[in-house]
Amino acid sequence: MQSGEIQKTKNRQSHTTIFAKHVYGNLYGVDSKLLIDPNFISKLVVEAARLGNLHILEMISRKFNSYNGSEGGVSVIALIEESHISIHTWPEGEYATVDVYSCGAKAEPRRAFNYLVSILKPKDYKAYNVDRGAVV
Amino acid sequence: MQSGEIQKTKNRQSHTTIFAKHVYGNLYGVDSKLLIDPNFISKLVVEAARLGNLHILEMISRKFNSYNGSEGGVSVIALIEESHISIHTWPEGEYATVDVYSCGAKAEPRRAFNYLVSILKPKDYKAYNVDRGAVV
Repeated sequence: MQSGEIQKTKNRQSHTTIFAKHVYGNLYGVDSKLLIDPNFISKLVVEAARLGNLHILEMISRKFNSYNGSEGGVSVIALIEESHISIHTWPEGEYATVDVYSCGAKAEPRRAFNYLVSILKPKDYKAYNVDRGAVV
Repeated sequence: MQSGEIQKTKNRQSHTTIFAKHVYGNLYGVDSKLLIDPNFISKLVVEAARLGNLHILEMISRKFNSYNGSEGGVSVIALIEESHISIHTWPEGEYATVDVYSCGAKAEPRRAFNYLVSILKPKDYKAYNVDRGAVV
């Protein structure tokens, strides 16, 4: 959503601006050894949150079984004051996805995302910045 | 990502297909009374998961304080076998966002998303379907 469009149509009404930014990405060619330990991934999320000015309220994680006997992937999700951070991994494909979703003007979700990329060092990745806010 | 592109470049190599679909949306003009109770939203997530053939492993939620003395919003996040479902609400703006992120060929995240919209009945909404999978 382009906030300007909404403001234009409602410029004689009071309105509320909700800031919410969602940075998500798909990471290809990550060393599979980095993608199997929920404690390791959880620690990355803690540091990413700190760097992004995000505040963790609760964190949950799971280690999954693989289909072929190799190490399975993990999911780590942090409920943060500003919304959530999630990482899902598929070590069998050297693949992981990252979502940093934050509300509030002080949050820096891209900084948190970039930190995760800097540690996981994918051979390639795609990142997207999406406005999840509204002017209502 | 277009899976066909990857298969074309790797057609003499073995590859792994990771199915992951992410349906997310922004819901405008939701009755604010539907957006203030984490237990209510959690029940919606449970039913959405059932309809989408998604399997909840753990669910966490928070009720937030508002800035102006009115009812604050909630966040509900479900860690599911297939990845996650999240709902964040801003009752002061009659606004909510929904993410249904699922891996596996049997998941039907759009069905889960549509159920949530059918109950929250926004005056308007935008929905996006994103491929979060890979052929690696």
